[in-house]
Amino acid sequence: MRPVVPFVSSASPDERQSWREALPKALDGIADVKPFEDLTEDQRSEARVAIVANPNPANVAALPNLVWVQSLWAGVERLMGELPANGPKIVRLTDPQMAETMSEAVLAWTLYLHRGMPRYIAQQRQKVWQDHALERPQERTVGVLGLGKLGAAAALRMKANGFNVLGWSRTEKSIEGIACRHGRAGLLEVLGQSDFIVLLMPLTDETRGLLGQDELSACKKGASIINFARGPIIDTAALINKLDNGPLGHAVLDVFDEEPLPPSSPLWDHDKVTVLPHISAPTIISTASRIVADNIGRYYEDGTVPPAVDRERGY
Amino acid sequence: MRPVVPFVSSASPDERQSWREALPKALDGIADVKPFEDLTEDQRSEARVAIVANPNPANVAALPNLVWVQSLWAGVERLMGELPANGPKIVRLTDPQMAETMSEAVLAWTLYLHRGMPRYIAQQRQKVWQDHALERPQERTVGVLGLGKLGAAAALRMKANGFNVLGWSRTEKSIEGIACRHGRAGLLEVLGQSDFIVLLMPLTDETRGLLGQDELSACKKGASIINFARGPIIDTAALINKLDNGPLGHAVLDVFDEEPLPPSSPLWDHDKVTVLPHISAPTIISTASRIVADNIGRYYEDGTVPPAVDRERGY
Repeated sequence: MRPVVPFVSSASPDERQSWREALPKALDGIADVKPFEDLTEDQRSEARVAIVANPNPANVAALPNLVWVQSLWAGVERLMGELPANGPKIVRLTDPQMAETMSEAVLAWTLYLHRGMPRYIAQQRQKVWQDHALERPQERTVGVLGLGKLGAAAALRMKANGFNVLGWSRTEKSIEGIACRHGRAGLLEVLGQSDFIVLLMPLTDETRGLLGQDELSACKKGASIINFARGPIIDTAALINKLDNGPLGHAVLDVFDEEPLPPSSPLWDHDKVTVLPHISAPTIISTASRIVADNIGRYYEDGTVPPAVDRERGY
Repeated sequence: MRPVVPFVSSASPDERQSWREALPKALDGIADVKPFEDLTEDQRSEARVAIVANPNPANVAALPNLVWVQSLWAGVERLMGELPANGPKIVRLTDPQMAETMSEAVLAWTLYLHRGMPRYIAQQRQKVWQDHALERPQERTVGVLGLGKLGAAAALRMKANGFNVLGWSRTEKSIEGIACRHGRAGLLEVLGQSDFIVLLMPLTDETRGLLGQDELSACKKGASIINFARGPIIDTAALINKLDNGPLGHAVLDVFDEEPLPPSSPLWDHDKVTVLPHISAPTIISTASRIVADNIGRYYEDGTVPPAVDRERGY
């Protein structure tokens, strides 16, 4: 008999439905995927691995013998906060397609800024016909903060499309063909030289509030910020201040301290802010299901648990 | 004594000033560039080549011995209409940087559509937090109409960024790695299969009104059009009809029957139209000046006139 793998999710009904169709297909011949709600007492007790998407922690706790959970998202800081430290290991979704999708988002919204779209869109509303100077991408610098898989892919993608690229990470890293900086001094250097600053690091104790009043003041005049990481990495009040009073030119924000962004937030109406509903790198169900199936297949074959989140480091 | 090359322009004062600084620098040691207004009678008569940017035709006619004119723009249909057929040969600016800049614009506004920016921008105005499904670029087809230098560069650039690409030209052409179609049947095939239709052909008798009621009706449901070529290639009334009643989803228009687009145009306010003020591929002065200098230098060295516009073909 094939093992039963619980699917524990509180995602939207539409999204759960899509996964409930894709996962059993991908895991066909490996395991039976079953929504948590449909499990028998025995199946709960026998489960060694579960697939989770925004799970109710009580439901995960109701699977007492879990060795690991496979998240369907790349970001797991919420999961880490909700599951006990001595609980199951947490495996993030590391889908190469996600790095592709994220680097496409970085390219799309950098070009949005580089080609002056916010300005041209505002002009259309006023029926204003006015062109603005354009520079070659080689004359514009993209600073990529965070050089994990997503940051590295984005840096290379921007370079391939002609931009000058600077990378930054907290601890020293190197990417072939990309000038990389690290540490506090490196951060200030990258902020001072970049026309477009792209955030792609995880939220940890070290990155919370990384860009505050001082750091944002150190940005190049007219620089724009793209936050595709997590809201609390930027101090929102300081960001609004630096958009209103310089040096910042625009902010593209896909992530916020609170999501959905509350209607009362001043970010919605700010004419130098583009608000996105956390859509930079949605999981693409077809490719992600394949990865999850491979991970679970290998586990049932030889007991290998994929590399899990390091709770000390926070990602 | 170095020859004097007239600069005949009715561009904006700002723009003329930029060229008047860049051209003499680039032509240093080859020729003296002098604004038309400052020429002596002798200099008018002796001029064999002139640099033109939106020139007053009467001024060009006042240079009786011109062999050729070097345009600073890629598009010369207006110049062809204004200069007599037995007048000087017309040399378009063929700046490789322009193909780069244009393909960047194609990439930027295709990603604008692919990543749902018009929708997310509209949502922000309503404070709506709602994500929308995203497909991989491999599952989306870009149809590039016109396979000259600009079209070929754009097709390759879109393919390099993951999109499925179809090319189309009036007469048969091939580009390595790109599936190419031609002729009427090929056009209808490309329109029926493309999610994004990009216009990059010159305006000629054959391309005027190329996309009318019938052709736009043949487009794939939800397809978007990006016109970076010339306004009259699309029948504007038919376009608005097909945006309002299907099958078209959105149009990004950078060129119009009349430019600047008159305030009375319904395109300004149409929520499925993005209006741009002819900014897809502005001439980048630094690189263009270099090319102009090379062309004029070669002419004074050995009499070679660069390949000129074919007035029969129209480009």
